[in-house]
Amino acid sequence: MNTFGEALKVTVFGQSHAPAVGCVLEGLPAGMAIDREALAAFMARRAPGSSPTSTRRKEADEVTIIAGLNPKGETSGAPIALTIPNGDTRSGDYAAMGKVPRPGHADLVAWRRWGDAWDRAGGGQFSGRLTAPLCAAGALCLQWLERQGIAIAAHALAIGAIGDEPFRARTLDERSRRRLSAQIESLRDGRSFPTIDEARGWVMEKAIQEAASEGDSLGGVIEIVATGVPRDLGDPMFDGVENVLARALFAIPAVKGVDFGAGFGAASLKGSEDNDPYAIDDDGEVSIAKNDAGGILGGITTGAPLLARIALKPTSSIAKRQRSVDLETMRAIELRVKGRHDPCVVPRAVPVAEALFALAIGDLMLSKRAFERL
Amino acid sequence: MNTFGEALKVTVFGQSHAPAVGCVLEGLPAGMAIDREALAAFMARRAPGSSPTSTRRKEADEVTIIAGLNPKGETSGAPIALTIPNGDTRSGDYAAMGKVPRPGHADLVAWRRWGDAWDRAGGGQFSGRLTAPLCAAGALCLQWLERQGIAIAAHALAIGAIGDEPFRARTLDERSRRRLSAQIESLRDGRSFPTIDEARGWVMEKAIQEAASEGDSLGGVIEIVATGVPRDLGDPMFDGVENVLARALFAIPAVKGVDFGAGFGAASLKGSEDNDPYAIDDDGEVSIAKNDAGGILGGITTGAPLLARIALKPTSSIAKRQRSVDLETMRAIELRVKGRHDPCVVPRAVPVAEALFALAIGDLMLSKRAFERL
Amino acid sequence: MNTFGEALKVTVFGQSHAPAVGCVLEGLPAGMAIDREALAAFMARRAPGSSPTSTRRKEADEVTIIAGLNPKGETSGAPIALTIPNGDTRSGDYAAMGKVPRPGHADLVAWRRWGDAWDRAGGGQFSGRLTAPLCAAGALCLQWLERQGIAIAAHALAIGAIGDEPFRARTLDERSRRRLSAQIESLRDGRSFPTIDEARGWVMEKAIQEAASEGDSLGGVIEIVATGVPRDLGDPMFDGVENVLARALFAIPAVKGVDFGAGFGAASLKGSEDNDPYAIDDDGEVSIAKNDAGGILGGITTGAPLLARIALKPTSSIAKRQRSVDLETMRAIELRVKGRHDPCVVPRAVPVAEALFALAIGDLMLSKRAFERL
Amino acid sequence: MNTFGEALKVTVFGQSHAPAVGCVLEGLPAGMAIDREALAAFMARRAPGSSPTSTRRKEADEVTIIAGLNPKGETSGAPIALTIPNGDTRSGDYAAMGKVPRPGHADLVAWRRWGDAWDRAGGGQFSGRLTAPLCAAGALCLQWLERQGIAIAAHALAIGAIGDEPFRARTLDERSRRRLSAQIESLRDGRSFPTIDEARGWVMEKAIQEAASEGDSLGGVIEIVATGVPRDLGDPMFDGVENVLARALFAIPAVKGVDFGAGFGAASLKGSEDNDPYAIDDDGEVSIAKNDAGGILGGITTGAPLLARIALKPTSSIAKRQRSVDLETMRAIELRVKGRHDPCVVPRAVPVAEALFALAIGDLMLSKRAFERL
Repeated sequence: MNTFGEALKVTVFGQSHAPAVGCVLEGLPAGMAIDREALAAFMARRAPGSSPTSTRRKEADEVTIIAGLNPKGETSGAPIALTIPNGDTRSGDYAAMGKVPRPGHADLVAWRRWGDAWDRAGGGQFSGRLTAPLCAAGALCLQWLERQGIAIAAHALAIGAIGDEPFRARTLDERSRRRLSAQIESLRDGRSFPTIDEARGWVMEKAIQEAASEGDSLGGVIEIVATGVPRDLGDPMFDGVENVLARALFAIPAVKGVDFGAGFGAASLKGSEDNDPYAIDDDGEVSIAKNDAGGILGGITTGAPLLARIALKPTSSIAKRQRSVDLETMRAIELRVKGRHDPCVVPRAVPVAEALFALAIGDLMLSKRAFERL
Repeated sequence: MNTFGEALKVTVFGQSHAPAVGCVLEGLPAGMAIDREALAAFMARRAPGSSPTSTRRKEADEVTIIAGLNPKGETSGAPIALTIPNGDTRSGDYAAMGKVPRPGHADLVAWRRWGDAWDRAGGGQFSGRLTAPLCAAGALCLQWLERQGIAIAAHALAIGAIGDEPFRARTLDERSRRRLSAQIESLRDGRSFPTIDEARGWVMEKAIQEAASEGDSLGGVIEIVATGVPRDLGDPMFDGVENVLARALFAIPAVKGVDFGAGFGAASLKGSEDNDPYAIDDDGEVSIAKNDAGGILGGITTGAPLLARIALKPTSSIAKRQRSVDLETMRAIELRVKGRHDPCVVPRAVPVAEALFALAIGDLMLSKRAFERL
Repeated sequence: MNTFGEALKVTVFGQSHAPAVGCVLEGLPAGMAIDREALAAFMARRAPGSSPTSTRRKEADEVTIIAGLNPKGETSGAPIALTIPNGDTRSGDYAAMGKVPRPGHADLVAWRRWGDAWDRAGGGQFSGRLTAPLCAAGALCLQWLERQGIAIAAHALAIGAIGDEPFRARTLDERSRRRLSAQIESLRDGRSFPTIDEARGWVMEKAIQEAASEGDSLGGVIEIVATGVPRDLGDPMFDGVENVLARALFAIPAVKGVDFGAGFGAASLKGSEDNDPYAIDDDGEVSIAKNDAGGILGGITTGAPLLARIALKPTSSIAKRQRSVDLETMRAIELRVKGRHDPCVVPRAVPVAEALFALAIGDLMLSKRAFERL
Repeated sequence: MNTFGEALKVTVFGQSHAPAVGCVLEGLPAGMAIDREALAAFMARRAPGSSPTSTRRKEADEVTIIAGLNPKGETSGAPIALTIPNGDTRSGDYAAMGKVPRPGHADLVAWRRWGDAWDRAGGGQFSGRLTAPLCAAGALCLQWLERQGIAIAAHALAIGAIGDEPFRARTLDERSRRRLSAQIESLRDGRSFPTIDEARGWVMEKAIQEAASEGDSLGGVIEIVATGVPRDLGDPMFDGVENVLARALFAIPAVKGVDFGAGFGAASLKGSEDNDPYAIDDDGEVSIAKNDAGGILGGITTGAPLLARIALKPTSSIAKRQRSVDLETMRAIELRVKGRHDPCVVPRAVPVAEALFALAIGDLMLSKRAFERL
């Protein structure tokens, strides 16, 4: 239910205003020393308050690992359990709302399902707050993937109509590879807005502020890449890499679409354009000339970079007047959502997308069997 | 591995040139008489040779149910096992190819994984042939869903650059509802090409034939809708309706993207545009004014029509000259794929998409618990 | 891996000397107020130090629920996460041991698997301490089962060669039913040793003390019964009630055997003796005349009481001299295990067995589907 | 539901009088040539009519593999699907019975669950006939396990009160090892009754014939051993080797108890007796001096032989007069079961127990991950 993965399994718990959010992460190889600074740095990228466009709710997002490590601070083979306390909650904002579902939000379905038992404060378990433990689990997984030579990065490819430079991952020549490495590197320099082209990021920030000032919100597209992913991951039909990544990525609230490689664009290509030809490289190995497949054929990794995009709808909680209903009186009502909501979730969803990519790739890697052929 | 579903579970088996393809379907409620004509009619929609644009491989696609029914021909509570024999196989087409992977196809990853043990004939278990048992399982599930008041339909929304009229499922007024019903109805009249606007279908067919005559292929987009789906299906985070449907739909070979409701388009909307407002209808019930959410909020169905799109890349097996390699000699080689391949898989993938929608919705329906609240 | 259940899922974490042990419990129906006193009382039955025969390690075993409840303290539909802090740990006892596996314990297999990454202190994740979160999860589940009219009880049927009066659950006449109820009731009166016949409990306690004084330990048999379990639970073949209960009960460290109803005794009965005949009761309903089946036919509950027994081997950590090896020097060595170990785990395993019965029955109950027949 | 295993997954289908029984087996390593003679020989051991004490229903039990092999007859990485046709069915025997549940059989629970939709003929999916595909899957798995140096054998340890010589698997000295090998070998010589001591087998056969002549039936105990099983298989708590094997073995109809190593006998041992001491062997490796643990510590294999016992109740279908009820009229009725039923299922269950051991061990072997430690 709140669990993802077979060999690397994450089980998420918590609600926006519960004492804590957290997760259990099973399956990380034993003997890995946890880099706590890297963990904190990853959490900071998702933390609220990091830019002028994010919610003013402040969360330290400090991760406490309560089980799973040995006295040396390494993974021990036992499941890792971690918690992140919920501070600075303002349930009053929600109590005052009455029983009025916010359009575009999960309120309506949650009330229908659990009635008054639902913990509505802050959206309960539907809150974006639940992406904090996903980030913590993903950050731990990333520490292992990096040791396997895998790098994962994401950026805001678009906010509304404003676009960023895309990853250079659909061409595979030497120059493209170098450019892709540089792009990934640049996104790690602590820039306040996650775009490859910083100037585009400033324009995006401005657009978000404008929308916010109108009591409105924006959506966008996140592009995610993973390099160094070994070939041979994934299984045919229902457990292919696309199936697994898509199932993971739709866990991010607001995601309404996922595609890979040329993606929706492939629908208007001809076979002779879309097919990635093969060649023999200088080492006598098979190489793939380009990567419209996004690193995946038949559901299985080819060794080329994994490339995905996710579409996020605009934040549903907006200050603008909206039509809703009062579920107590069953009357129509006008709603203006108060509280501290991000006018665009895309920037803070960027590390979450990386975390889910990491968890899914980690699961595929760790699912590798000792016996595959006789 | 080749299994989908929790409460309604399908396990698919077979290779393109094995004696048979088939599946086991567990979880259909007991006591349902199988309508064999409806099953055969559904299979015929996917069958090769049904239109001038499809492969000339002929398959009767006759479904034999070898287990699971009682003597009256009803489901009995036991798992259903069905087989579809593979006739008219021409392994020679493949043997002559040498060990040369077709660009865009799963050949390369399959050889890397299983070596010479891989059953390469016809693409082995990566063949589109494996969608036949998916259709059979989906058709049986549909017979149950129809009794629950659920209708599912799909059409070719686009072939290359040519578009069809979309489903009227993002507006929910009475006129839209009637139009949507009429659209669904029209797609069941046995038309040779699965478009709502038949004239657009003729243009698409012509484009496919043109591509074929150049030894090339086309991709496209399929739109799928389900009406009558009850609210309250799906679970938060990893088992939401989008997660489950996406995982299912990526089982269709060639699918590279999935989105729901406004989908990728939602990324450029404002919150005030994308949010679907609530109202009170004539019966005093909550109604949703429009449906950019595609029937899903917080991963859970709202009762509005489910609406999804999938992007299919062009057929990878093309007659045009392509660059490949010979895996025996490790030399570059030019390849022209022979054999009988659809120049565009979209038309035959339309019933497959319906089948997977049915299996996923069936699984969500049958996962409903007797105890949800105290 | 550390997860049990489909519809009611428990994921356990922690090691003996980690900051905490705990678990995540998903699937309890929403709207149930947690009875914290009943929870604490259940935990107290497993807690160390409750009788002269148990370890002198003191643990308050206080359960903190960090997620899953609504502000009213009810289940909310979100997963419940709970932790139990580990106090009073004495890792020194273990550090002094060197790298010498205790015969009969998991030390050897853990070192082989995880090497020095294994958190050996207190046996790491193999510690009996991990049964504390199982009890907490089971106790919460029991609160729901009791509302469904289900009662679960267990007792020490045997310690070494000393036996207790068995549950009157294999005969189903009115007198037997009343006696069974009285037996279950009597076990809840706070008695210090979990036997139906208190005098037998004193003899058992004495035998345990004698074994302890010799630096040795004892095993035993626990009998578990559940009344009020509805018929129709369980699925044929691999998901029958016996399969599910056995998988759960073997989670208790030291369990080496499980049987149901007449169990191993059924092997020496004739069919005419073992078969439970049917009759029509005063209400015109089918009744079952006796219950050698232990409430299960074809893997499915009959409505009669569920009856199981588990065999527990004697505690492996004993003070007596034993032959072991030093894994650093690879030399034979004599070992006398220090530390505070129960000379017999049976009494404290009694509530653990009830907890696992509760979790397994809860899972079977909550797996019930809304649609089973047309 | 009808599926067992994670890495090696078997999904069973069929009813006693359906056109066929069969299964899908996923996960066997690719490239293994199937030995069809060995498969047929294994099936013959379970086949009816092989001894004077078994049912007179005749089944060729011929296995047809309809998918999963490559043209060379090797496993290909695709799921294996196999069917076994049901011949010689006599539904009349069942139709004449009316709606009268046989005591001790699954009839009552099946009618309650599925009503008249249940395929009652021959017991439907509860029939012992369903063990035929389990044997076929197990036999294929065994062919792989044998290549890994693993041997599996089972025998009738007891029929009623008559016992066979047990496996010499709880002592591990050189002489015991040789004796165990000889015992395993002897059981493969085609003997008509599966006992180590053939004379005991004759006595057992006679006892079965006597019970049959009285219209009655007998139960018994099967002992199963596996040698050559590598250490390190299994996971703590819920996925230990005992949990997995027990879940598998309870799939055999009539099994009411399972234990491992000293099993229920361990309950009356002292720790100093039950613990298996460690020593250093001639190669400087850790050796285990005896094997009361049955090859499993902490749920994980030690490398010593796996040893289990299962208790089977007597056949429930007996000719003797029994009390039952007519579910149509809801009146008490006397029942004498006609039809061809084994008066004791133990002999034919012996290969089934081996098959389930093979499937469970195969699953544990194939679940081994490529990455376990850093």
